[in-house]
Amino acid sequence: MTLHDLDRLVETAHALADVAGAVICPYFRSPITTLDKADESPVTIADRMAERVMRAMLAERHPDHAVLGEEFGLQSGTSGYRWTLDPIDGTRAFITGRPSFGTLIALLHEGEPLIGIIDQPVTGERWTGVTGRQTQFRKGASDVGRTISARACPTLADADLSCTSPEMLDLAPRPGWDGLKKQVKRASWGGDCYSYGLLAMGHIDVIAECAMKPWDWAALIPVVEGAGGRVTDWNGAPLSDAGDGTVLAVGDATLLDSAIESLRA
Amino acid sequence: MTLHDLDRLVETAHALADVAGAVICPYFRSPITTLDKADESPVTIADRMAERVMRAMLAERHPDHAVLGEEFGLQSGTSGYRWTLDPIDGTRAFITGRPSFGTLIALLHEGEPLIGIIDQPVTGERWTGVTGRQTQFRKGASDVGRTISARACPTLADADLSCTSPEMLDLAPRPGWDGLKKQVKRASWGGDCYSYGLLAMGHIDVIAECAMKPWDWAALIPVVEGAGGRVTDWNGAPLSDAGDGTVLAVGDATLLDSAIESLRA
Repeated sequence: MTLHDLDRLVETAHALADVAGAVICPYFRSPITTLDKADESPVTIADRMAERVMRAMLAERHPDHAVLGEEFGLQSGTSGYRWTLDPIDGTRAFITGRPSFGTLIALLHEGEPLIGIIDQPVTGERWTGVTGRQTQFRKGASDVGRTISARACPTLADADLSCTSPEMLDLAPRPGWDGLKKQVKRASWGGDCYSYGLLAMGHIDVIAECAMKPWDWAALIPVVEGAGGRVTDWNGAPLSDAGDGTVLAVGDATLLDSAIESLRA
Repeated sequence: MTLHDLDRLVETAHALADVAGAVICPYFRSPITTLDKADESPVTIADRMAERVMRAMLAERHPDHAVLGEEFGLQSGTSGYRWTLDPIDGTRAFITGRPSFGTLIALLHEGEPLIGIIDQPVTGERWTGVTGRQTQFRKGASDVGRTISARACPTLADADLSCTSPEMLDLAPRPGWDGLKKQVKRASWGGDCYSYGLLAMGHIDVIAECAMKPWDWAALIPVVEGAGGRVTDWNGAPLSDAGDGTVLAVGDATLLDSAIESLRA
């Protein structure tokens, strides 16, 4: 793939995030409109409509690419490329009016994540990770953006840990999270994909979550790893469609081994 | 007190929020500056400097008013009025780069909350409650604002419950929160004072928290009650300096009794 080809794909990823945000924002903190089916919640409508619009754009621009989305499953392709879409990651945050949900867009090639976008359409914050490049952050469409880095944090005793909710941890395939929490400086809650953006810009050091699907984690990898961090499962193995749904992200790659160790406790 | 007097005090409350935001925002997601003491964190400096600046403004405009703040304690007054200030409510949110912390400003007269402001200076969101008036919300300094209401939710089974963190609940004077959680539709986490703003605009139905000081809760009362809700302790008693630190807020006043009941379970 030439540099030009990669840039075209990054351009598509941004166009997908833009169009998803345009669909989603009017439903945030809003009652249902008269155009919508009365028996569905705003989040359900926004989620489905945003994915439908992104799929329409991909069918036009890259008809040979596969698409996997939370709402409409897998549309297969012939090119080795697969887009992975989650229009609204953080349904509870969306429902309760918190602008910490996000749109997740990833492009994988033969299973390897090439591009990841975490987009918060209400605040205009967008994290963009591209394999081999430094992660970019911008706030608002008129911001040219800047490169970001996770911060150094070689020991768990200095680490800020984050997780979306204790209810998520009830779904973990094995205990371990409390073992990690005992080792860190501090824990905080909430955030969904937004927390991974904060990790990539040096405000959080470790995130351990579970019950994560490919559309939840694929976009996180280029964002976090392009900022110097690492993303694996709780055993340190690469994430895959056949994995156990656990996700461990560290901002400082040297923190990975001790985080894995403490998750075994 | 004439209407004119109350309006002047509301004007002071807005001026305090403006000046606090101007102090705090440069420290959000920023490393320490060379002007600051190297052994202090940005949040500590921002918190203290914002309170100092607000106190200076109050000394100029209302020298006979008492001031109670988290950082500098009680400055007594002679007028029966007391300002209650928390420059950064949600220290963990601030530290981890989440724009869900807030500045809390309240004015009490003989212990009764008259004015409350919840201000999120990064997003520009500001909730203003004034006794006897409908709660106002605005987003950004150029927004003229609008009145808001909490939503109807007469039964716990339909309610969205929120709490800042499970660690906070470890400090509760008695169990009970899990009893409430079992009754509600859904729980979500994070948010500090921001969640009370979301309750006042109809996105959350019930919040039960504890270990709350007067500067944590005083501003919440006019905001929530001016939107149709209620704020009490977990036993349904009015909040007071001598209370047990528990806070229960409901958006629909008819939900209060069943929430209190479930917190006893």
